[in-house]
Amino acid sequence: MKLMNTNWNYPTSVWFGAGRINDLPLACQKTGIKKPLLVTDKGLVKLDIVENTKRILKEAGVDFTVFSDVQGNPTEANVLNGLAHYTKNGHDGVIAFGGGSAIDAAKAIAFMSGQSLSLWDFEDVGDNWTHADINGIVPIVAIPTTAGTGSEVGRASVILDEKSQNKKIIFHPKMLPEVVILDPELTLGLPAHITAWTGVDAMVHAIEAYIAPGYHPMAEGIAIEAIRIIAKYLPVAFTHGSDIEARGQMLVAASMGATAFQKGLGSVHSIAHQLGAIYNKEHGLLNAILLPYALKQNKPAIEEKMAYLSKVLELPTHGTDAIIAYILALRNKLDIPHTLKEIGINDDEAERIGKMAFLDPSTPSNAMPLSADDLEKLFRAALQGDLNTL
Amino acid sequence: MKLMNTNWNYPTSVWFGAGRINDLPLACQKTGIKKPLLVTDKGLVKLDIVENTKRILKEAGVDFTVFSDVQGNPTEANVLNGLAHYTKNGHDGVIAFGGGSAIDAAKAIAFMSGQSLSLWDFEDVGDNWTHADINGIVPIVAIPTTAGTGSEVGRASVILDEKSQNKKIIFHPKMLPEVVILDPELTLGLPAHITAWTGVDAMVHAIEAYIAPGYHPMAEGIAIEAIRIIAKYLPVAFTHGSDIEARGQMLVAASMGATAFQKGLGSVHSIAHQLGAIYNKEHGLLNAILLPYALKQNKPAIEEKMAYLSKVLELPTHGTDAIIAYILALRNKLDIPHTLKEIGINDDEAERIGKMAFLDPSTPSNAMPLSADDLEKLFRAALQGDLNTL
Ligand SMILES: [Zn+2]
Ligand SMILES: [Zn+2]
Repeated sequence: MKLMNTNWNYPTSVWFGAGRINDLPLACQKTGIKKPLLVTDKGLVKLDIVENTKRILKEAGVDFTVFSDVQGNPTEANVLNGLAHYTKNGHDGVIAFGGGSAIDAAKAIAFMSGQSLSLWDFEDVGDNWTHADINGIVPIVAIPTTAGTGSEVGRASVILDEKSQNKKIIFHPKMLPEVVILDPELTLGLPAHITAWTGVDAMVHAIEAYIAPGYHPMAEGIAIEAIRIIAKYLPVAFTHGSDIEARGQMLVAASMGATAFQKGLGSVHSIAHQLGAIYNKEHGLLNAILLPYALKQNKPAIEEKMAYLSKVLELPTHGTDAIIAYILALRNKLDIPHTLKEIGINDDEAERIGKMAFLDPSTPSNAMPLSADDLEKLFRAALQGDLNTL
Repeated sequence: MKLMNTNWNYPTSVWFGAGRINDLPLACQKTGIKKPLLVTDKGLVKLDIVENTKRILKEAGVDFTVFSDVQGNPTEANVLNGLAHYTKNGHDGVIAFGGGSAIDAAKAIAFMSGQSLSLWDFEDVGDNWTHADINGIVPIVAIPTTAGTGSEVGRASVILDEKSQNKKIIFHPKMLPEVVILDPELTLGLPAHITAWTGVDAMVHAIEAYIAPGYHPMAEGIAIEAIRIIAKYLPVAFTHGSDIEARGQMLVAASMGATAFQKGLGSVHSIAHQLGAIYNKEHGLLNAILLPYALKQNKPAIEEKMAYLSKVLELPTHGTDAIIAYILALRNKLDIPHTLKEIGINDDEAERIGKMAFLDPSTPSNAMPLSADDLEKLFRAALQGDLNTL
């Protein structure tokens, strides 16, 4: 029977709207944060949106400091440095400000601020998370500046273990930010290519969640509507970066994608996680290239859902092939390459990538069971651009 | 611009699956309840599903008592009696077991257990809810036995004020149950007419939420998928009451309907609330009769959404008229009458009903603004069965 036993849990307080960044002091007050550490990344800290946020906090008399030594694909060292900064300055909560990397690092810092065990002791394996001291996790206010990862509504943080070259997931329910501010004004300055990559990442979250085999109609409803919104507004946000409605819709859709993927992700993420760690390429770009190949490989398991989705998107034909054709056209419109080769990836590590992708936490929730060989085949197809080998 | 400022908040831990009632002791443990008060209603307390639940608690060594003096459309007296029972027996949490009435009463008891103000002081007007002592609200485990109100995932409780003959909403975020058990086995014995009425109530929640004018894409995605599920499974659950999949899908869809209506309800509920209080008729039956008339009246405001919804439901034509025709056919299949007259309601109070419906908290979120006259007109049309006057 389709109705397997599942436990559900839905997001948090989301404050949406243009200019809502001005409510940040209120968000700190609501969450009981008196001295927040503002965590952001090296690129953002130089931008006006961070300057403006600092001004808002200052004018409200909020005592804070800034930590911005966070790289894309944040590392254990980033978290530990942030933690030292947090402790030295006597903070009592965290403002997570930025894209997925800054938010993930910020969440890990808030989580680790009062733990006696070390970061990797909380890798999302078995019941590790239950070993955390729940009173040692401080509140988080999250403010995304890209519309993609949706980490602001997630209960996990992805941190790179530099020794093993492995991205590890740290999970705890209390890592879910208590308040999320979705302010489209913060995303108006995003370059078109970042808009495209992060936007397709959000779409991949929604698609992989939708086709994951579990029973979770609430997640599916959210996923379908997120895909519909992204299909409509991502091309607008890409072409007209200053369109506030498109930016707002994309921010919301990204948080919906991440909410939906509580149901699970799939093979796109299984492989992208490995390529991100090995080649340090952007997560969204990798996902965008991989998506049509993964759909082709999953075709036997997803035909019915793809038929429905193509009706929702009002495509002229219905089914997996229709969705693949649609994705190829969208990718083209967004200037996203068709092969991994074009972004400098080669097949040197193909076998290892297949094996590691098989062990990725996204693999068990792929639309259909895949072996390490299947995943290697998927990787090689995306490398060469040959949809027909799948 | 469509993107107005809104704050969002999503449900709670939901444990779904046939037989999950066996996890009730675990749910008490997770929520820290050592001595629960099991609140149910007069009809249910005699049934096997309550006996079985009591057995499960006993076998797990959970110390509990039962309070079942709760009527349909629960009253202030029901809540106060339950509260006295709660206090006398030294409970520390509540199990809400039953349909919407039992769950609403249970939530109100858990809420009031540690308050110094009185029940009506917390009517959902202005910021009344902020006057509650948050530490005086005990945890709730909710277990619905009908698939309709979705009160198990709601943060409010509807209690009848017998003096004014008015249903009042008591609201507090902490009235949201901490754990919800959705066990379709508990609903297998529901009579067909209750299945129909409660099932259409869930559909009305989803439809009114979907067409409410706010910007809340997550709620809309949930609403659309709930409507799709109900359209598919309500006729099955009605005809084949023992179909566990249909029962499970309906339970989930009902919780989705209630999750979605955080976005708002509309004129169906505005009027049904009044008729429930004055004529003591079943809420779902009233909603089921009223729905097509309200859609007709709202037609100018909902055409685009109804066109999309009719595609989702794969209707032969698209738009509001198509949805109305579909609803009329569904109602017919479910043996639901076409007029309020047929269930013994008359026009003696028509003017007052229009006026009171106008003041109902559901009216401001109706798809389009309606006056007291409009609502009286809607009521009269549903009374007589004349869709064309609207
Ligand atoms: Zn992703
Ligand atoms: Zn209702």
